[in-house]
Amino acid sequence: MSPRRVVVVGSSGAVGRELLALLAARGVPPDRVVALRRRAADGAVPLDGFPFAPDDLALFCAGAEVSRREVPRALAAGARVIDLSSAFRRDETVPLVVPEVNGDALDGADRLVAGPNCTATLLCVALAPLERAFGLERVVVATYQAVSGAGARAIDELRRQTRAALDDAPLRPEVFPEPIAFNVFSHESALDPATGRNDEEEKVIRETRRLLGRPDLPIACTCMRVPVERAHTEAVDVTLRRPASEDEVRAVLGAAPGISLVDDRAAARFPTPRLAGGRDDVLVGRIRRSTGDPAGIQLVVCGDQLRKGAATNALAIMDRWPPAAPPADAPGPPA
Amino acid sequence: MSPRRVVVVGSSGAVGRELLALLAARGVPPDRVVALRRRAADGAVPLDGFPFAPDDLALFCAGAEVSRREVPRALAAGARVIDLSSAFRRDETVPLVVPEVNGDALDGADRLVAGPNCTATLLCVALAPLERAFGLERVVVATYQAVSGAGARAIDELRRQTRAALDDAPLRPEVFPEPIAFNVFSHESALDPATGRNDEEEKVIRETRRLLGRPDLPIACTCMRVPVERAHTEAVDVTLRRPASEDEVRAVLGAAPGISLVDDRAAARFPTPRLAGGRDDVLVGRIRRSTGDPAGIQLVVCGDQLRKGAATNALAIMDRWPPAAPPADAPGPPA
Repeated sequence: MSPRRVVVVGSSGAVGRELLALLAARGVPPDRVVALRRRAADGAVPLDGFPFAPDDLALFCAGAEVSRREVPRALAAGARVIDLSSAFRRDETVPLVVPEVNGDALDGADRLVAGPNCTATLLCVALAPLERAFGLERVVVATYQAVSGAGARAIDELRRQTRAALDDAPLRPEVFPEPIAFNVFSHESALDPATGRNDEEEKVIRETRRLLGRPDLPIACTCMRVPVERAHTEAVDVTLRRPASEDEVRAVLGAAPGISLVDDRAAARFPTPRLAGGRDDVLVGRIRRSTGDPAGIQLVVCGDQLRKGAATNALAIMDRWPPAAPPADAPGPPA
Repeated sequence: MSPRRVVVVGSSGAVGRELLALLAARGVPPDRVVALRRRAADGAVPLDGFPFAPDDLALFCAGAEVSRREVPRALAAGARVIDLSSAFRRDETVPLVVPEVNGDALDGADRLVAGPNCTATLLCVALAPLERAFGLERVVVATYQAVSGAGARAIDELRRQTRAALDDAPLRPEVFPEPIAFNVFSHESALDPATGRNDEEEKVIRETRRLLGRPDLPIACTCMRVPVERAHTEAVDVTLRRPASEDEVRAVLGAAPGISLVDDRAAARFPTPRLAGGRDDVLVGRIRRSTGDPAGIQLVVCGDQLRKGAATNALAIMDRWPPAAPPADAPGPPA
């Protein structure tokens, strides 16, 4: 689709800034991009009362609360919305889309599409080709998540606190409940006291099942934060339905859209957050059989949380979204 | 056993320094502790030509090469040896021991015992009670390994490189092949080109099977380095033979030796490397069911790699090791 204007809601956040940079890099003319934030600053317009228009495409990345309040207003004004918050991800009437995984879901999409959680997005880009080729029986994933998922302030906290740790000064956690400098901790999202899962794990499980169209897929997930700025790493163990050789798996993943294989055993070159940072694809490597299980395959997946995990996926949805059908009473295209 | 002298071979390394500190903290008189290193310095004696004596207990932590060369000499002199390197771990005639896991193996131990790989040690302290109570069907583990496992120089590299990264200066990796500052990478040990597993993963798999007495246990393992100084974290997914409730699992782990539960959902307090650093026990928490699998249980395990992963375990072996049987022609104890 080619909207008249692209409206970025939440332009001062970590994802918003990425979106503006990617739109500029694509050569979208500045007068077709509107940056909205809470208060006018740096060329951005205040969100409050902003007149959305039909033919606008609004990209929401200002958090679930803003989305719940403002997305209905944008839709009522006739705009299309790609919402990157969690506000609508559990609404079965709103397509949840990673184009490489379930792009077909966009064919029926009306005016609102949700972009998934970043960790689920990266995981599904790697899992979808395996599900198509061999079927998935079970997935176990442990994450090494960058702080950028908690926003720009979290990146500042990592840097500030690390400097303090090196100087033996007090660490003073503000954004995160635990010190992040030289530490690892369970993801800080709210924890369900009944299941023991945190909200991030819950999202990965639920959204992966939805994206893959496998509502009962067994997924065991542990989400952890590590002192890394912006790319997530995931250690993935997959039990396939149909056992496949390592070479078959490598061929399937190597041919899959959105994936770059980084899997050089001789040079010990594999995905790392430093390699994945600033890239629009998902790095996949360390493809190998797991021990004692003929259908077990292991992978390491890395992706830039702000790019492929959020902004890049939003633009891929925009590109893939078919033009709106004309209203029933409007003249059709020339035959 | 109560040896005449405790001889620490490799006293200037990260584990050696821990051993000396732990022996001093126990009140072992300084004249009963001998520190050996390559060259005399800081009160240490040169290893080369050191006269080991019967009744010495030698703790080797100077790497596999030194152990292969010097352990036979210590044994020939009549000393007992606890070797913390990988030199003898694959020798089935040498007991590989974590006292909480397979302390019985010491009853038949003659003069040489091996301490396992640190990652395997921490893992097995958590797995052994589950194996005993419910049986293990399969284990999937992803590690978040501190740099201390690569020695004291690696800790220096982490600090030096992190400071450089904060100052936007070049990182210059020396100990590790990849930058460790604000990064995550697959464990740097040699990689088997056929299996794709690195040597650390191979050790975890092989030694866990040996410690648990389960030579065919399916274990899928991914070993990664994270920018953390000295405690390892492990995300563990276990399939039990006999499905158990979360409460049963928590009760079994809470009563197990060497484990402290850190599993407070209300306060979101779970194991972290910062909590585990400097402690002699293994922290276990985030005990929960995995999704879609009635026999699946998940845990997070943290332990100080230099303490419980190495030095503390060596001293626990020393404490548990029965006194040597008197020679056949010596008088027995009074009846």
